[in-house]
Amino acid sequence: MAPIPDASAPTPTTITTSTTMENNTMKFGEYLFKRLAQVHSVNSIFGVPGDFNLGLLDHLYTTDLQWIGGCNELNSGYSADGYSRYTNSLGVLITTYGVGELSAINAVAGAFAEYSKVLHIVGIPTRRAMFDNVEKKKHLHHLVPSLDSLEDSDHFVYTKMVGGISCIAKTITNPATAAEDVDEVIKTIFKHSRPGYLFLPLDMADEIIDASRLITEPAVDFHRVKIEEEANTKLVGDKILSKLYNSKIPAFLADVLVRRYDQGVELLRELVNTTNIHNYTTFMGKSILNEYHPSFVGDYIGIESNKGVKENLESSDCILYFGPHINEINTGHYSFDFTEEQSILLHPDYIKVGSELFRGVHMINVMRYLLSNIDTSRIAAPVPVPYHVSPRYPNIPSRSSISQSVLLKKFESFLQEGDVVVCETGSFMFGIPDFRFKTDVNYIAQGFYLSIGMALPCSVGVGIAMKDQGSKSRLILVEGDGSAQMTIQELSSFPHYGLKPIIFLLNNSGYTVERIIRGENQTYNDIKPWNWSKVFELFEYDGTAEGKLISEKAKQNKHCVSSIVSSEEELSLAMTSVNSKVDDDKLRFFEVILDKLDCPWRFFHMNNYRLFPLTDAGSKALA
Amino acid sequence: MAPIPDASAPTPTTITTSTTMENNTMKFGEYLFKRLAQVHSVNSIFGVPGDFNLGLLDHLYTTDLQWIGGCNELNSGYSADGYSRYTNSLGVLITTYGVGELSAINAVAGAFAEYSKVLHIVGIPTRRAMFDNVEKKKHLHHLVPSLDSLEDSDHFVYTKMVGGISCIAKTITNPATAAEDVDEVIKTIFKHSRPGYLFLPLDMADEIIDASRLITEPAVDFHRVKIEEEANTKLVGDKILSKLYNSKIPAFLADVLVRRYDQGVELLRELVNTTNIHNYTTFMGKSILNEYHPSFVGDYIGIESNKGVKENLESSDCILYFGPHINEINTGHYSFDFTEEQSILLHPDYIKVGSELFRGVHMINVMRYLLSNIDTSRIAAPVPVPYHVSPRYPNIPSRSSISQSVLLKKFESFLQEGDVVVCETGSFMFGIPDFRFKTDVNYIAQGFYLSIGMALPCSVGVGIAMKDQGSKSRLILVEGDGSAQMTIQELSSFPHYGLKPIIFLLNNSGYTVERIIRGENQTYNDIKPWNWSKVFELFEYDGTAEGKLISEKAKQNKHCVSSIVSSEEELSLAMTSVNSKVDDDKLRFFEVILDKLDCPWRFFHMNNYRLFPLTDAGSKALA
Repeated sequence: MAPIPDASAPTPTTITTSTTMENNTMKFGEYLFKRLAQVHSVNSIFGVPGDFNLGLLDHLYTTDLQWIGGCNELNSGYSADGYSRYTNSLGVLITTYGVGELSAINAVAGAFAEYSKVLHIVGIPTRRAMFDNVEKKKHLHHLVPSLDSLEDSDHFVYTKMVGGISCIAKTITNPATAAEDVDEVIKTIFKHSRPGYLFLPLDMADEIIDASRLITEPAVDFHRVKIEEEANTKLVGDKILSKLYNSKIPAFLADVLVRRYDQGVELLRELVNTTNIHNYTTFMGKSILNEYHPSFVGDYIGIESNKGVKENLESSDCILYFGPHINEINTGHYSFDFTEEQSILLHPDYIKVGSELFRGVHMINVMRYLLSNIDTSRIAAPVPVPYHVSPRYPNIPSRSSISQSVLLKKFESFLQEGDVVVCETGSFMFGIPDFRFKTDVNYIAQGFYLSIGMALPCSVGVGIAMKDQGSKSRLILVEGDGSAQMTIQELSSFPHYGLKPIIFLLNNSGYTVERIIRGENQTYNDIKPWNWSKVFELFEYDGTAEGKLISEKAKQNKHCVSSIVSSEEELSLAMTSVNSKVDDDKLRFFEVILDKLDCPWRFFHMNNYRLFPLTDAGSKALA
Repeated sequence: MAPIPDASAPTPTTITTSTTMENNTMKFGEYLFKRLAQVHSVNSIFGVPGDFNLGLLDHLYTTDLQWIGGCNELNSGYSADGYSRYTNSLGVLITTYGVGELSAINAVAGAFAEYSKVLHIVGIPTRRAMFDNVEKKKHLHHLVPSLDSLEDSDHFVYTKMVGGISCIAKTITNPATAAEDVDEVIKTIFKHSRPGYLFLPLDMADEIIDASRLITEPAVDFHRVKIEEEANTKLVGDKILSKLYNSKIPAFLADVLVRRYDQGVELLRELVNTTNIHNYTTFMGKSILNEYHPSFVGDYIGIESNKGVKENLESSDCILYFGPHINEINTGHYSFDFTEEQSILLHPDYIKVGSELFRGVHMINVMRYLLSNIDTSRIAAPVPVPYHVSPRYPNIPSRSSISQSVLLKKFESFLQEGDVVVCETGSFMFGIPDFRFKTDVNYIAQGFYLSIGMALPCSVGVGIAMKDQGSKSRLILVEGDGSAQMTIQELSSFPHYGLKPIIFLLNNSGYTVERIIRGENQTYNDIKPWNWSKVFELFEYDGTAEGKLISEKAKQNKHCVSSIVSSEEELSLAMTSVNSKVDDDKLRFFEVILDKLDCPWRFFHMNNYRLFPLTDAGSKALA
């Protein structure tokens, strides 16, 4: 954010209202937003203004798109990611050159790691400033000068930084191809389900372009996985069916990438309903399947699975593994124990049947084929499932009144059908696989990239998406204290946008996850103590900006209610009061006091893989 | 931040206390911190723990270095930058792989843009995880998988991102050269006065290395500019002296890089004292010189200078321009108007006398040479200076009770000798050149990179540095409301570390700087309204973490006092109360209510360069 866009101004212009012109032409900025508005479930745009994107932002108001200004760019990036995770469509983020785009880069990397469809639009200097032989020698604000001070600045130094965290990055400089470029970026994002970048020179926003593809090729189906390669799909599909028909104990394992492609969840649930094959989710795939379905077994996380789950899954002779995201955390630290021959991997990039690899065949198309062609009479009848498989260590001792074991149990029963649960990276997250989610609970977490602070702004994006779609479901955020401090300002978006989530802030006095790993009592794992229950006195404000103090009446009308929960009784009361809808029109914020060394059994148990020895607390817990 | 360091653990180890061993060997982690502690003015280290750096952090406790945990990595990066700007030595930042380092990358880019000596140490996975043929195929948390999901992750994807924003980046993998590598990084940072990176594999911290250079080559003088190339220095120095002796109206122009090299400020002030040559500072050089010196003229910012300053400077036939940072903002949008023949540029990378370019000669050495060899009797006697040159538009109208014009005037007289002023990027910053600073005011701002939100955590770093050095000076922070929202959580560091700055939060209801540029009333320039005066009720807390409410006594003992200032009278009262030390043991937080379209004349005036037409407010102001 800064004073002057550029020292090389072309023609001044006035504030844009609507620029639609004759002959299907319009200003590029208007076109861009109209195009985005055509894309499935894109109704809000996240970001922070800056002098290199202001000219673009004005065009937003020619559409019905809603501008969701974030407190900072990292938060907006996380919100756009959350929006995308909920809608399974684009989460659009707009930032400014250098200062803005770089601040958001960790959010984009997280989206890239977890296949989230963030479109990051960055306002950059004018084409003249970048390409004119005289102008390009000027050192513009927000742009780092080169190491050798006698060399020119590299105007594309930031563009070069995103190659490893995006599936496509385009700098739009040519009005004649601008519309095509935009579509290429959007389509590539949907193809890979990973973030893409549009770098927009300041002077591009007002360029007149041919906008006819808004009508001739509307973007309404960009999110669909195209039906193509039918021959290959049949070839692969038949191979899978043949394996399935020969299997004694077939199994379905559902992972996160199923969720990232259009119809993935619906198709898989239908396959489960049709076949009644035993089905499992992974750590990251949690909530893709209906956990009350008679053939649902549990969460398979290798040796970090609940009792019986590992043995059940691994006894299968034909595991159809849908949408695999094979990584350290999701595989229980690479403790999945089944052979290539036992398994069929259905990935958006490839299908692997035993040791045979097929590329150019899409998971979704194969799923469609299976559903259309499966002969259920040829599938082995499933044995009953011994659910719900229980946690291996149901009671981890704690020095606080509320232990995480108790919290987990109460939380599981607190959840209701259709709840949307956003969970922060932290100890509690590793207890979630002990839950049996009620029907259509939607669980959103960053289970692999694990950037703390993500969940809070992510839940803002989820809340906006829910509102955009008219969802009546509850939004529940589970936060840690250390994590919340990272991105706390975005909490103010909830009252500002009229969102009323139920927030549980688990206050365990610092970075508990790290204390368990190392440095139980080291000061580096401490955080600054905050008076959490005062948080909405700062962030919810309907006083005037001219400095008048909030009135008594306004105080009563505040829609955020905070309480401290420090005993099991208080926890029960808190949950009952929410579930009985006593304060249904309020945002509820519960600060739950936990012991600083208490965490779910699964996290302690990971010591098999740790570099450092198990802490005393961990040893006792698993004794 | 996340659960498990790595699935490829070598030997478990216990928590480190001190590992000093016989024969001058010690663990690398301990060595690293002992080495850093030897460097001039390095007493505190900033950062956020993460599982890839915990093993390293333990070694911190073998030294007297203080750990300053930030609420997030961007904030810690800004704090380290502030620490460096105050000490003119290293600001050390420690983060973790991916999630941490990327979150801080914008702070590092800002330090790179403004020549600040940030050393960014990043904890990364073990060498085995990165190089072993089996292990390296595992997808570790915090690491983005490649675009093609069948390819291995690139363990150096993040390392590659920092090439354009650092002067050196080393991954330390060899114990035999580790000590040398560290020194190379530190020395390179001092040489370029720009950030450098140390990437440290998790298992390096406990490697035993030869630590003898702690004794044989202590790092105490790494910050000094070496006296070398004496022949060249003499050649260049004599050329400059000859020009000076022939000049009718010589002038000194002091820019920010003078401040970035050891003895720069002292040498330049001594040159001024010795010669009484008319002297000026740039926008970014503000406060390098003594503004009450009889030969100080004012701030030269091209056409954005105060009355008379531009004409005075440009009438000189021999401008010695010290430590130039030639960029858009600092040059008044490239409106410096003097010829090559009129000027001599003394830059740390080069010296340019007229059109003659010399490399391998350091500004500092030439300054030393000038001071030792100058014959003041041969310098033209200066004419008296018509100071203090006044602002061109002293009264910009405002719709709020307090206008920025009034605020600037009051603020100038409020400042006292020795004050340290940290100013946020925002409208007020562009009024600062209208100040005549009292002796030894130290002004710190990010005047070129202009990343809003920087100043708040930067001032934490400055405050820590002041405390480390036993400074009794006042720390004053001027913040904007939009900027403060970016990094607000770091405010809690002030009470936590016992710092008591005087904070002026200028509340002008959004992004005023951007409203002036474009979108005066557009919603994208609005921010969420906060109840600012409640900010320390959240952030200052001495209640226990177990959830007890803060006691009445504790409330009275709070050391942060907030007030709303919405009239000139209240402003005078606030400033008087501070200057009369009524509440000397308290942090003072003033929320100053300003009009949302009010800004200093200089910012309105920049419309000569703007892409968009001047807003109504601006036109009226400059009418």
